[in-house]
Amino acid sequence: MLAYRSLVGRGTLWPCPSAPTARQTRLGYGLKQPYRALSATAKTPPRTIFSGIQPTGVPHLGNYLGALRQWVKLQDEASSDTTLIYSLVDLHAITIRQDPKQLRQWKKDSLAMLLAIGLDPQRSIIFHQSDVPAHAELMWILSCQASTGYLGRMTQWKDKTANEKDGSEKSKLGLFSYPVLQAADVLVHGATHVPVGHDQAQHLEFARQLANGFNEAYGKNVLMPPETLISPAKRIMSLTEPDKKMSKSHANPKSRILLTDSDDVIRSKIKSAVTDSYEGISYEPERRPGVSNLIDIFYHSGESVETESQVALAEHMAGLSLRALKEEVAMAVVEVIRPIRERYESFVRDEATLDAIAEEGARKAVASAAVTMTDVKRAVGLV
Amino acid sequence: MLAYRSLVGRGTLWPCPSAPTARQTRLGYGLKQPYRALSATAKTPPRTIFSGIQPTGVPHLGNYLGALRQWVKLQDEASSDTTLIYSLVDLHAITIRQDPKQLRQWKKDSLAMLLAIGLDPQRSIIFHQSDVPAHAELMWILSCQASTGYLGRMTQWKDKTANEKDGSEKSKLGLFSYPVLQAADVLVHGATHVPVGHDQAQHLEFARQLANGFNEAYGKNVLMPPETLISPAKRIMSLTEPDKKMSKSHANPKSRILLTDSDDVIRSKIKSAVTDSYEGISYEPERRPGVSNLIDIFYHSGESVETESQVALAEHMAGLSLRALKEEVAMAVVEVIRPIRERYESFVRDEATLDAIAEEGARKAVASAAVTMTDVKRAVGLV
Repeated sequence: MLAYRSLVGRGTLWPCPSAPTARQTRLGYGLKQPYRALSATAKTPPRTIFSGIQPTGVPHLGNYLGALRQWVKLQDEASSDTTLIYSLVDLHAITIRQDPKQLRQWKKDSLAMLLAIGLDPQRSIIFHQSDVPAHAELMWILSCQASTGYLGRMTQWKDKTANEKDGSEKSKLGLFSYPVLQAADVLVHGATHVPVGHDQAQHLEFARQLANGFNEAYGKNVLMPPETLISPAKRIMSLTEPDKKMSKSHANPKSRILLTDSDDVIRSKIKSAVTDSYEGISYEPERRPGVSNLIDIFYHSGESVETESQVALAEHMAGLSLRALKEEVAMAVVEVIRPIRERYESFVRDEATLDAIAEEGARKAVASAAVTMTDVKRAVGLV
Repeated sequence: MLAYRSLVGRGTLWPCPSAPTARQTRLGYGLKQPYRALSATAKTPPRTIFSGIQPTGVPHLGNYLGALRQWVKLQDEASSDTTLIYSLVDLHAITIRQDPKQLRQWKKDSLAMLLAIGLDPQRSIIFHQSDVPAHAELMWILSCQASTGYLGRMTQWKDKTANEKDGSEKSKLGLFSYPVLQAADVLVHGATHVPVGHDQAQHLEFARQLANGFNEAYGKNVLMPPETLISPAKRIMSLTEPDKKMSKSHANPKSRILLTDSDDVIRSKIKSAVTDSYEGISYEPERRPGVSNLIDIFYHSGESVETESQVALAEHMAGLSLRALKEEVAMAVVEVIRPIRERYESFVRDEATLDAIAEEGARKAVASAAVTMTDVKRAVGLV
């Protein structure tokens, strides 16, 4: 408890951009003596970063380069008064029917993977969503604010129901209402910043609207409208159909590189990646999606290259054959995945440690959520 | 904890009508030695009765005669192995915008009223819904089973959205999804029997479907499909517009008799009740709704008269003038309400006792819900 509280940076001061939320006031933010602590960190309010990932199988390279790597980067570069909260959102996983035994295993595997990529449970709060009832509690309270019309216009709901013969008729409520749970996930921890992909920006905008609507309705700054941190990484595409996103649901396992793939499997998958029959190497995502995707993968897999553009990188490699390009890419990807895979293999065997980390994460996340829930329930009149 | 568990009747045996739920098995029901305990109670399985009322103001005579009095009767006549769980469903109250200060007060008042009508916190579990997060947790899990098409056809949703210019557009998700929360309320406590009014029968059928659907999906008897106990009391109608139900939202306060009304107020409201200009007294609800409503009130207010019919009662009173009928009715109602009002006035002043009772009720209800939630989470694969 104390360890967690200290992360939040009680008493740190900053010129408040808007009125502090009740949560922040209770945590000691936004004190009225604006010049008492003009340290280096005094210029920005302490951040709370929240993000979540579904524990539905081993993440692939696209998940890693697109989102997970940024989680680690945010953690490693965060100032000491930043709180980082990362959730395995198992309650979202069950909007689609899951095999219970498999989900149970995936939850453990996913926790091991978050540790393997470099999240540190001493620094970041890592927890299973269903261990914190406040997510569902706040979701209900926000349900009383959220318009059904708005939810019905959400892109993902329209996409999911468009293919059904009888439209939304048989679709489950969870598929319709989950953006409200997503909003609750973020708001219940008072997140100030949420790293998301482009396809989630609409949902985060919805969370902001719900927060502002709630604050207006109850005349208090209870919920924090969070800011979006869009990941700089371009979407990684399928190796077999480079016009589609790399996805764990794609039928062909050669379409994706998993973070558990062996060096040989990685090389083989990249070797068989679909490219094209144009001459040489160039970065032209529209005309040459396969080759450009390989360049994107190479670009994002490297540590040092992110300073130049993909186009410049392609020019440097212009003399290579496609085969040589694939070998370069495979080597870079192996370098990225090998240490993750090795750490994963050691973490996943140690169930006792995983359980202990999950329990500690749940304890901290329950405490974090309780701060908001007390304010929310008081504002609504439930307590 | 122990006090509560003992109410559940651990180890009592009965010939099980269907396979016991996992919850029941864990509570010791449905043991495999069917002839060990052939006591008087061995013939029927232990019941768990659940019902809820919104804490949105002082209940009126219609609430009391229609529902609340039956709660007390069920409590007083229950066999010792019956569990009774009564909830002040504050999470349902907020599907409509409430003044927080008023809601907070209403919650206290409503608890005092449940005690005043005769609910015994030593015998029945009485709690505020929002004190038990498992209601919202199970609601989310059931949301992943509930079809949006079915919810859209619910009578109350259609009624509520029919009057809006843009249909369901601006209606809140909570108004659409609350039958799933209602189902969770009942199912999370493993209720076997639920006393409801006729207008709630559709929602209870929905709860049964969700329970059966869940059990089928996960191949286990986890959730108990509850039976409906329809209240024998006819609906009590408004005193000023006897073709409408007595309601706390009716604009004219003379349309309803509150359980806190003084003897004089009760007499005055009944004296000014709308009747008709036909000769004499007769029980004809279609032709003479006002007079028939008064006879209904008299009929249900009496302790001893429930053996004969309203028609027979009207015949006994045929010689009375309308004024005399009203005096008789007023006298009967005063007899019903006076002791409730007096007990209420003493309970409502004693905040410390109310808080202690709410806390104890929450503790017991949390324990009751935890039994089901452990089974549900295990079945789904969340634990």
